[in-house]
Amino acid sequence: MENIIQPKILKGFRDFLPEAEIQRALLQEKLVSAFRSYGFVPIDTPVLEYSEILLRKSNGETEKQVFRFEDNGGRDVALRFDLTVPFARFVAEHKEELYFPFKRYHIAKVWRGEKPQAGRYREFVQCDFDMVGTDSAASDFEILSLMKTSLAAIGVENITIKINHRGIFNAFLARLGLSEKSEDVLRIVDKLAKIGEDEVINQLNEITEDNTKSSDIIKFISDSQDFDSTLSMIGEMAGPEAEPCVKRMREIRSMMKAAGIESTYVLDPSITRGLDYYTGVVYETFLNDLPSIGSVCSGGRYDNLAGLYMKDKISGVGASIGLDRLIAGLEQLGISGKKGSFVDVEIFCQDSSLASEYQSLAQKLRERGINVEVFPENKKIGQQYAVTDKKGIKWGILMSAQEAEQKKFTLKNLETRQMFSDVDADKAAEIIRG
Amino acid sequence: MENIIQPKILKGFRDFLPEAEIQRALLQEKLVSAFRSYGFVPIDTPVLEYSEILLRKSNGETEKQVFRFEDNGGRDVALRFDLTVPFARFVAEHKEELYFPFKRYHIAKVWRGEKPQAGRYREFVQCDFDMVGTDSAASDFEILSLMKTSLAAIGVENITIKINHRGIFNAFLARLGLSEKSEDVLRIVDKLAKIGEDEVINQLNEITEDNTKSSDIIKFISDSQDFDSTLSMIGEMAGPEAEPCVKRMREIRSMMKAAGIESTYVLDPSITRGLDYYTGVVYETFLNDLPSIGSVCSGGRYDNLAGLYMKDKISGVGASIGLDRLIAGLEQLGISGKKGSFVDVEIFCQDSSLASEYQSLAQKLRERGINVEVFPENKKIGQQYAVTDKKGIKWGILMSAQEAEQKKFTLKNLETRQMFSDVDADKAAEIIRG
Repeated sequence: MENIIQPKILKGFRDFLPEAEIQRALLQEKLVSAFRSYGFVPIDTPVLEYSEILLRKSNGETEKQVFRFEDNGGRDVALRFDLTVPFARFVAEHKEELYFPFKRYHIAKVWRGEKPQAGRYREFVQCDFDMVGTDSAASDFEILSLMKTSLAAIGVENITIKINHRGIFNAFLARLGLSEKSEDVLRIVDKLAKIGEDEVINQLNEITEDNTKSSDIIKFISDSQDFDSTLSMIGEMAGPEAEPCVKRMREIRSMMKAAGIESTYVLDPSITRGLDYYTGVVYETFLNDLPSIGSVCSGGRYDNLAGLYMKDKISGVGASIGLDRLIAGLEQLGISGKKGSFVDVEIFCQDSSLASEYQSLAQKLRERGINVEVFPENKKIGQQYAVTDKKGIKWGILMSAQEAEQKKFTLKNLETRQMFSDVDADKAAEIIRG
Repeated sequence: MENIIQPKILKGFRDFLPEAEIQRALLQEKLVSAFRSYGFVPIDTPVLEYSEILLRKSNGETEKQVFRFEDNGGRDVALRFDLTVPFARFVAEHKEELYFPFKRYHIAKVWRGEKPQAGRYREFVQCDFDMVGTDSAASDFEILSLMKTSLAAIGVENITIKINHRGIFNAFLARLGLSEKSEDVLRIVDKLAKIGEDEVINQLNEITEDNTKSSDIIKFISDSQDFDSTLSMIGEMAGPEAEPCVKRMREIRSMMKAAGIESTYVLDPSITRGLDYYTGVVYETFLNDLPSIGSVCSGGRYDNLAGLYMKDKISGVGASIGLDRLIAGLEQLGISGKKGSFVDVEIFCQDSSLASEYQSLAQKLRERGINVEVFPENKKIGQQYAVTDKKGIKWGILMSAQEAEQKKFTLKNLETRQMFSDVDADKAAEIIRG
């Protein structure tokens, strides 16, 4: 006899058992449905790409985390670590085949060899949606609106989306003579919520070498009036260079009002999304009941998506939902939904000589739109009930030889124990549908 | 300026552009819906596993094709090359958490470094469904029935499912004194359709060293009467040892008849599914209009799913749909479906000062269950029409400033060019829904 190999998976990787996978599938289906309702289309790209393509612009930190190897043909390849880089490569490679403005969603796995810890995995799902080839208030708004709609679709309604405009911030820094240091300033400002105002001032002083500038920056990012007043104020602080950006924000705001969804959005000048990459609006999304888990959906506008792979500049705007973080948050809030089952009714096996009748009834019910499971063996009925209960199935069917002859059976609500005798497939389908 | 990197993907890998990905998504959704209607549940497993787990039982051929490497932590890991081995590991690892009989489907990517050629890719999707922890005619039947149902769900109705029972074949070989050589015989017999009867006889003679035995084998596998007569005949040739297997086949046949689907299934004693792994029923599925592309859905019963990873024997039965081959076949047959769009209506941008009104109308329509795309920029209307047409969107909305004031607009059927003037959101939703 061969030795048994201990079944185990790699650290930081996960199996999804049916209950968790059903929940994940339902969430994804609802998100997909929201994306489609806005005209976003799916694409897919390979899991494995040339390392040169994926890593060209990465910093050392990313590179260390990537699953990278030489394939059997001697090629230097890597598993994708996000969906943005492959999307940029995709747009550059297929620009002649796509119709712009191009709106895509992509829900797929990515891999990073991070140190596994609570809520951090080496294999996880990203959910990105972007609209590229257009630079307009309408497209900025559309992403912002879809963020709200898609989260609402999965039951996450009590949120605040904080937005800002990088162009206004950059104009403001230019006015302070800090353009050269803007990346450093952004990195510090981005930590405001984490490290507090005093520490931000300390770190800013080191960069600016000027207390007045530091306190101006603090004043800029701390503003917390209503949307329109804040916009006017930061617009003034940033000066005339910021005027087109302020105008863009006004247009976006006006669309929010027209759609009656303006209360979800807050203008927060401290939101900068550290990345060098963004150039226009930027945003983060917080659960009002659980802000501590951080942003569950973030993104912004960039003006050069695929610059590494093509000469044309393609502007775009997009967002990414952190599905794992969001699911963890929903569980903490107790709104992760009830135990899900796709099965409406279980046909119990009372008498194995009736196996054909059970199968035939199952088929009739399926033709009537009912999802049916047939218990395939004549186990003790108590055991059959127990398994069915664990699966969260609401209805059961019992059929004796005598009932089978009459082409009738008994339908039972397994939650309330209510029984319906002498029903046929039509009647049962009607009762199950409620 | 940085150098541009030529955007390209690895040989044997594919991008899916929206049109292809929409088609694939729709197929998968229909398959999933069929699986759920039978009570099958989804699971997920990691893309990357320990090589020891994946490759323990593989032959040299598999090993050469696997994407295998050492990760940053020095672990010997590999990308999965099928969904069966991970499923066996999954069942062994989680047996205490699963409810048996356990029915799962898994649609996911696998990787093999095969020589790329027409229809062969290094990254492709497998679609497996299995029912484990039960050995019953009902479960054999359920997989066979689901094969038919799931293919019908994606428009593939004109099929023949050829089935056989490995136990009957094995009993027959034992009677001929060829048990020791059964793997060789199976391998040869499996090639009947490919190499023809004469060559099969030649190869069998080398193995059996007995012309009578070879012609008995040919007689056994060539039988082509109706299901019941063939079953009786091969049962007789196989002798009393085969009796339980013949009985199982009769039970399965009786369920097919009760369900009224018996005409799809043919008993073909030449079907053996070469693999050592199968022990009970085996089957392959052919498109009647395109048998040449080979089986599009195959599988069978095995009596020891997870023997490498646990001591308990778990019996099961399952099938796998070759999605890529099937999609290629559907395209050849011209039944791959029309150009798919998830969008019902495009709101054209006639006047960018109305951008808020367009967005607000889009939202109203979405609330009425209509999928809406808004053209985000004031491009020439001809260009807007052209893009919309390429996307296969059926309806368009035009709204002038004057109409906007009346909260009315014009709905246009982009295929027939029929116009509906002065409609509102309710009326438009009604017309679009038909």
